[in-house]
Amino acid sequence: LLHADEKTLKEQIEYIHPADILELLHDEDIDPKALMARLPDSLIADIIDEEDEEDKYGILKLFSEDKQEEILEEMSSDELADMVGSIEDRSELAKVIGKLSEEDRSEVRQLLSYPPDTAGGIMATEFINIYDNKTVYKTLLYLQEIAEEVETAYCLYVVDRQNHLRGSLNLTDLVTSSFDTAVLDIMNPHVITAHVEDDQEEISRQFEKYGLVELPVVNDADQLVGVITVDDVMEIATEEATEDIHYMGGISGEEEVDGPLSDSLKSRLPWLVVNLLTAFLASWVVSLFEATISKVVALSAIMSIITGMGGNAGTQSMTIIVRGIALNELNRDNALRIFLKEFTVGIVTGAAIGGIVAAVEVVIQGNPYLGLVTGLAMVLNMMVATATGYLVPVLLKKMRIDPALASAVFVTTATDVLGFFFFLGLATLFLPKLL
Amino acid sequence: LLHADEKTLKEQIEYIHPADILELLHDEDIDPKALMARLPDSLIADIIDEEDEEDKYGILKLFSEDKQEEILEEMSSDELADMVGSIEDRSELAKVIGKLSEEDRSEVRQLLSYPPDTAGGIMATEFINIYDNKTVYKTLLYLQEIAEEVETAYCLYVVDRQNHLRGSLNLTDLVTSSFDTAVLDIMNPHVITAHVEDDQEEISRQFEKYGLVELPVVNDADQLVGVITVDDVMEIATEEATEDIHYMGGISGEEEVDGPLSDSLKSRLPWLVVNLLTAFLASWVVSLFEATISKVVALSAIMSIITGMGGNAGTQSMTIIVRGIALNELNRDNALRIFLKEFTVGIVTGAAIGGIVAAVEVVIQGNPYLGLVTGLAMVLNMMVATATGYLVPVLLKKMRIDPALASAVFVTTATDVLGFFFFLGLATLFLPKLL
Repeated sequence: LLHADEKTLKEQIEYIHPADILELLHDEDIDPKALMARLPDSLIADIIDEEDEEDKYGILKLFSEDKQEEILEEMSSDELADMVGSIEDRSELAKVIGKLSEEDRSEVRQLLSYPPDTAGGIMATEFINIYDNKTVYKTLLYLQEIAEEVETAYCLYVVDRQNHLRGSLNLTDLVTSSFDTAVLDIMNPHVITAHVEDDQEEISRQFEKYGLVELPVVNDADQLVGVITVDDVMEIATEEATEDIHYMGGISGEEEVDGPLSDSLKSRLPWLVVNLLTAFLASWVVSLFEATISKVVALSAIMSIITGMGGNAGTQSMTIIVRGIALNELNRDNALRIFLKEFTVGIVTGAAIGGIVAAVEVVIQGNPYLGLVTGLAMVLNMMVATATGYLVPVLLKKMRIDPALASAVFVTTATDVLGFFFFLGLATLFLPKLL
Repeated sequence: LLHADEKTLKEQIEYIHPADILELLHDEDIDPKALMARLPDSLIADIIDEEDEEDKYGILKLFSEDKQEEILEEMSSDELADMVGSIEDRSELAKVIGKLSEEDRSEVRQLLSYPPDTAGGIMATEFINIYDNKTVYKTLLYLQEIAEEVETAYCLYVVDRQNHLRGSLNLTDLVTSSFDTAVLDIMNPHVITAHVEDDQEEISRQFEKYGLVELPVVNDADQLVGVITVDDVMEIATEEATEDIHYMGGISGEEEVDGPLSDSLKSRLPWLVVNLLTAFLASWVVSLFEATISKVVALSAIMSIITGMGGNAGTQSMTIIVRGIALNELNRDNALRIFLKEFTVGIVTGAAIGGIVAAVEVVIQGNPYLGLVTGLAMVLNMMVATATGYLVPVLLKKMRIDPALASAVFVTTATDVLGFFFFLGLATLFLPKLL
């Protein structure tokens, strides 16, 4: 790509996807300036769009001031808003805004006024609207006329003179209808819309539920203000899932696998410190029973089996419930049924695992009472595990705390503290039989 | 909906989304037969498409044999294949296949020959191809002619007489180009394609990377055999994320939050049994040091802090790495750097947490050597934790085992077994100083 002559270059770049050029750009062996210098403005704009938010401005800054202005002209309003919104340095920000056209500047201002995780924050203000008195033929002529400004679209939006959304017209319906058909007759008057303030997670779910490729966004007055396309939301589901997976694994901030060490420490140490408090609490429970342990030292080896298995069972229930909440699969109708199922799972798995452990301890230690204490503690702890695995995320959700973020610490605190308590407490009760 | 007169019904249903009718259908208070009896065949076909695979055939069976045939005619090849593929009863299967048209039958056979999680398994065979000698005007006339058969499309595919894919023509480009433009001049000749055998996860990633709405599927001879649309893949990312989240939480099979108890037991007990073996192993390590514990009973309360914190730190590293692998963010270039970062995180967090624990133990137990043993064991175990948190998923991936499914058990085995060993081993070495 770097060494091709002018004509070959022109032919080749026309069909290389900007995402692929971005990958080249991230390759350390390639000089980004040399690579980008020969690309057309519109392609550079697309590459900037593909880049992660915090690095977008870095690409723009590779170019001279004049060239920057030309590239900015090629970017759509939502792309501009994403980039401008990520610039933290105030003087740099002023410089970029100064390079925008009057129109772009006011649109970017408007878009940045919406929180970034709402419909307003992810929509683009470029869309094609047509008035409701057109025919197919007239519409086609109009589209050919404005071809220069049109970006890839899947729908046209039919509006009245006050810009109220009257319907959507699928391009498929446009191209398969005879030329004299009235737009009003082939449009869909019952368009699924989003409100500018809708949450992006909710929007991503709508795309999934209805199989949408484009979702028009309206304001309080039902006027069309923007459009969200499927490529804007494709990444939301993945991002939300990554966030939940990280939260559940005890990563509390935004951490990237190849990010800086300081980010990792910041996102992990707080979680470790919180868990340390939990560990001290559990350790304190054990210390209450030191007199019992000193008489039957074998208890010290067995007790971690009870808490460990309780932790596993609790994590299983919690995982199912947290993910169920994230996917909106829990509701009033099934809440009680699901709780009872989890509780039953606790009893059944507790009996099964408790039975095995009891049998093994009887064989190894030769004392049936030790087996009884172990098995009983296991059943009790597994019941606590599945019950808290259900209750903790559900309660956190009610308190508007993200269940993925905080559930694990409460569940393992319960299974550790109560696991030690059940086992060592029962052992103390049965102490004469264990000696 | 149930009681509206004929005309109102017709007007209303035209714009209700099938996904919404499906929700009504799942409402227990509504009789599905009464609801569905008045809907047109094409809408019933769409509703069946929206339903989960295993329940699709149940909806079809609500209708008389004749009506079933009419509904089947309205379904597209991939929808048919999804439904037919989910019927397990052989005689029912034969009955449905008998109702298909000759053409549908052979297409469904072909589609079912591909594994369900490959491009061939999720593509539809309905797409619009046009020959490469057309102009925009001729193309529009052709589309108006075949309007009846056309489903919603975003692209047309330009093929030669042997059905080799020559390019794709975006509908946006079609409607914005003047009528006499040659299709060859506005098509994109460098189409991103998938091969019929490509994995669905890879395909979902392509849609995300390139912001696609449609991806043509070709066979070995580069002939166009099908098309995957974005609504087919929207759910894949969510499904794969759910699977990974479940795997990491110790749910090894397909379990739904509101599924039957037997599913829950089947997906959870194996994991609990595997972890029980691990717990026995760790317990055995503790039992090796019973002599030491009997002399310093306080050790029994402290030791679970070391293993617990190691488990947390290991889970953190493992979570970051497993998700990084799932999102394809780990490669040869960054592998060593990421490993070293994880290892450094282990040293730094181990020093921090170990320092706190050591200080607390010194204060509580009044013995600086107990603090030293605890702190040292913590640092060692946190280093093991982050190192195995990296190495286990990476090695499992190399062995083609899903890291999300199996990593946790190996990581916690390492942190439990070695955590007890480090702590009790060091305590035994320093025993004279601890008494």
